[in-house]
Amino acid sequence: MLPVKALFFDMFGTMLDWRNGVARETRAILEPRGYSIDWHAFADAWRAEYRPAMNEVIEGKRPYVKLDVLHRENLERILPRYGVENLDLATVDDVNMAWHRLDAWPDVPPALLRLRKKYRLAPLSNGNVSLMADVARRNDIVFDAILGADFARMYKMQPIVYQTACEAFDLPPAECLMCAAHERDLAVAAKVGLRTAFIHRPNEFGPGKGGPRPHEPVDLIVQSALELADALGA
Amino acid sequence: MLPVKALFFDMFGTMLDWRNGVARETRAILEPRGYSIDWHAFADAWRAEYRPAMNEVIEGKRPYVKLDVLHRENLERILPRYGVENLDLATVDDVNMAWHRLDAWPDVPPALLRLRKKYRLAPLSNGNVSLMADVARRNDIVFDAILGADFARMYKMQPIVYQTACEAFDLPPAECLMCAAHERDLAVAAKVGLRTAFIHRPNEFGPGKGGPRPHEPVDLIVQSALELADALGA
Repeated sequence: MLPVKALFFDMFGTMLDWRNGVARETRAILEPRGYSIDWHAFADAWRAEYRPAMNEVIEGKRPYVKLDVLHRENLERILPRYGVENLDLATVDDVNMAWHRLDAWPDVPPALLRLRKKYRLAPLSNGNVSLMADVARRNDIVFDAILGADFARMYKMQPIVYQTACEAFDLPPAECLMCAAHERDLAVAAKVGLRTAFIHRPNEFGPGKGGPRPHEPVDLIVQSALELADALGA
Repeated sequence: MLPVKALFFDMFGTMLDWRNGVARETRAILEPRGYSIDWHAFADAWRAEYRPAMNEVIEGKRPYVKLDVLHRENLERILPRYGVENLDLATVDDVNMAWHRLDAWPDVPPALLRLRKKYRLAPLSNGNVSLMADVARRNDIVFDAILGADFARMYKMQPIVYQTACEAFDLPPAECLMCAAHERDLAVAAKVGLRTAFIHRPNEFGPGKGGPRPHEPVDLIVQSALELADALGA
């Protein structure tokens, strides 16, 4: 059993099915307005703008702004590519809130209920506080705190994001477990001193298109959050 | 009904009975070690060091450090005054954790259960994340996020602490309600634009020694958190 006291979760992809959720929510708003597009391709295109936008902050080219702001800018960039134009501002805002209405993978809520009895839990996501609060409520997840980008005022994978999360819980990194479906996230967490759990999400980017098994060593590899709870004795 | 979407809570005194809790926890650790002191006077003395310590941060004389650190420094200052000396470091740490083991006033848990169904809830306290997470668990309170000093990296009553809390929930201050038993806290919140609710806690500083009714106007005056839930239709 890993000697950890807190679990930190990457959210988009690891705990939340962002691709199907964004496709569903975007379609629900735009289809009644007469648009017929490949909603999953739209979700993928929106997500493709995610890392470059955060890199602007990481590289110091702009001050920290919350992910909702970056999502909104990225949305305005891709809507015309799909022929969506002249939406009123309230509708664009509503589309942007698709990210606040994501479903968790089905194994997540029952697993976190078990894990919470034994460990402190927090998202360590690039998602801002209100986004995390909304998806937690929607999916009946109770966290001890919302840590991550908004708390550190910096985006992953900068080490400060992991460090401030450990400090917020008064724990040395070695007593914190970073859980993610993405090997780079885990590699940086490990470099900061956290323990690492890889949760395989083979369908994150579409059926069978999830991230590969990690190439660097991790402490645990599991196929679901329930398997993580089993492995941690929760 | 006030048109608010989120409630922010002062915690020490307003939601938590810090005086009896600190007295009880300190006694539980030090009495078996042979000390017999006025435990409530000890709690009061410890609390008296609270505002001056935070003012060092507010005045820019030192960088932000979490309240646990200030509590610990203050504790080392007052222990000798009560004849407590030569405690090992682990015991001093344990005494310092008294603040993590406070009980809520009895009306608080059932009231927040009701209020959570209708409003976003967060502490807007000077207490750090781990302290808030521990008292929330102990008292079966579920918050949407832990905001306040650790999130703003500044102490109340600096306006930035209230502003960052509203921003974290994507709300204008006018849609946020600051709930506190202390008129100065509410006066600053009102100046920032928040709505205000005074919760009367007549026994915060000992029987009948709670803060007076506010001299400045507030939006609501209630006698308990349950009365607040009534007033807010929750």
